[in-house]
Amino acid sequence: MVRLGGVTVTERSVAQNAQLALLLEVSGTPKPGNVDREREHDDLRFEHFMAGAVGARSGLDRAAVGDSIGPAFEAAVEGMAGQSGGNTQLGALLVLTPLVAAAADERLSPASADTVVRETTVDDAASFYRAFEHVDVAIDDPPDGLEPLDVRRGSDAIPELREREMTLFDVMESSADVDGVAAEWVSGFERVFEASKTLLEGSGPVADRASDLFLELLAAEPDTFVVTRQNRETADEVQERAQEVLDGEEDATALAEEFVERDINPGTTADLVAGALFVALERGLEV
Amino acid sequence: MVRLGGVTVTERSVAQNAQLALLLEVSGTPKPGNVDREREHDDLRFEHFMAGAVGARSGLDRAAVGDSIGPAFEAAVEGMAGQSGGNTQLGALLVLTPLVAAAADERLSPASADTVVRETTVDDAASFYRAFEHVDVAIDDPPDGLEPLDVRRGSDAIPELREREMTLFDVMESSADVDGVAAEWVSGFERVFEASKTLLEGSGPVADRASDLFLELLAAEPDTFVVTRQNRETADEVQERAQEVLDGEEDATALAEEFVERDINPGTTADLVAGALFVALERGLEV
Repeated sequence: MVRLGGVTVTERSVAQNAQLALLLEVSGTPKPGNVDREREHDDLRFEHFMAGAVGARSGLDRAAVGDSIGPAFEAAVEGMAGQSGGNTQLGALLVLTPLVAAAADERLSPASADTVVRETTVDDAASFYRAFEHVDVAIDDPPDGLEPLDVRRGSDAIPELREREMTLFDVMESSADVDGVAAEWVSGFERVFEASKTLLEGSGPVADRASDLFLELLAAEPDTFVVTRQNRETADEVQERAQEVLDGEEDATALAEEFVERDINPGTTADLVAGALFVALERGLEV
Repeated sequence: MVRLGGVTVTERSVAQNAQLALLLEVSGTPKPGNVDREREHDDLRFEHFMAGAVGARSGLDRAAVGDSIGPAFEAAVEGMAGQSGGNTQLGALLVLTPLVAAAADERLSPASADTVVRETTVDDAASFYRAFEHVDVAIDDPPDGLEPLDVRRGSDAIPELREREMTLFDVMESSADVDGVAAEWVSGFERVFEASKTLLEGSGPVADRASDLFLELLAAEPDTFVVTRQNRETADEVQERAQEVLDGEEDATALAEEFVERDINPGTTADLVAGALFVALERGLEV
């Protein structure tokens, strides 16, 4: 319990902070290319992100009470998918689930998050694959030799997974060079923790800090979801144009309109912002 | 479990629908005078409503598992108040808590909701008064003879409450003629159930249906929260201007800007929309 503005308020639980991170992420505007408070697609709307965050909560609760990462993630994705917009926050949940487990277990840090992901099992990997049966996700063809482990195969890939004795950490490691979320898993969530400092050091509305952070991350590295759905060339262009916004040479709102029009959706960068919001909330970011 | 667009999705629980109703309510835009996706105040922002909905969930969960209405409402308000914007959704929670209890208990209907509120006790009334210690709320002076029961007194009013043997239903009945939410409590939630039909019969984005409904309700009756914070004359003007928007004689967005500027906030109407969204979700409204 803390006193705030003369009234007594309760501090949020770890799972509540994770759910709030999902909601704050989509509340930032403008976030060029992503659904935000002022831009949406006909078939993927702001309200689908609200429903996704509501449904994901039970899986986040499971991670917070110490359930294994794989089943907790699968439950979060299944709950998230209970709306008609399709995939809203799968990547964000893949960032959040281990962070929630780390925060519930001990003090949240890159080291504790690293321990959580390195302790994942083959069963966690099996649950991860099952999660893809709940929702259609844009995914590239897997690298050579990993075709049997294409996540689009869902449960059908599980025997191969057991044969190769791949843990969920191993699965992430195998795509860390082509997937920005997987790259976080194998690096102690380096960009997420770094980004959380930007949020904590900022001032003003949290939603504005989230959209500023989104642009900074977008300008720093190519978004791997854009590489997957379009190509590397487009991802490079997105990165450059985000830098132009930061340099004051381009208008963020105009860029947001253009990217939505061209169906360019830097989803991985949004996933990292959700993770950073969660870490910042755990470390005292006030909303 | 239902099949939707080729993937398996889980249906939401009663408490999840209530939380989603809170989030969808604030997602509708424009809603003249209220915080919405495109308009907010410096000290009461969209993000505060996100955090309010996250925090309220534990109280809604309690109502859904059969806890008494009073303590469940108090827990919801305490959780809602865990953000720095102050009162975001107290009135909406006063609408939702009995509806959640009715939906969890049996089929949600005006009759089952009426049974729930009429069964409230003096202890429920005591919890209701305690809820006001968690948050500052704009409230008018009570009617003559009810000064000792001014909710601003919080727990201090409880001995008087016990002396008079007033249940929470009795408390609501005593202000039903000056408070639109209390009026719902004593009428089987008549306007809420009626409004839910409008949502179910509509088409297009749910958030748009919510903002259309807001305008219809605003044009139908004076908003009692505006009466409380400003006066009856202002509430009458608000009602007339909402009708002008419906008649195509005034622009909803311009009116929204003006009301925010003049600090006119038809909060009771928003509370009814949240209740209607919940009933509609329970009855199959797809998001």
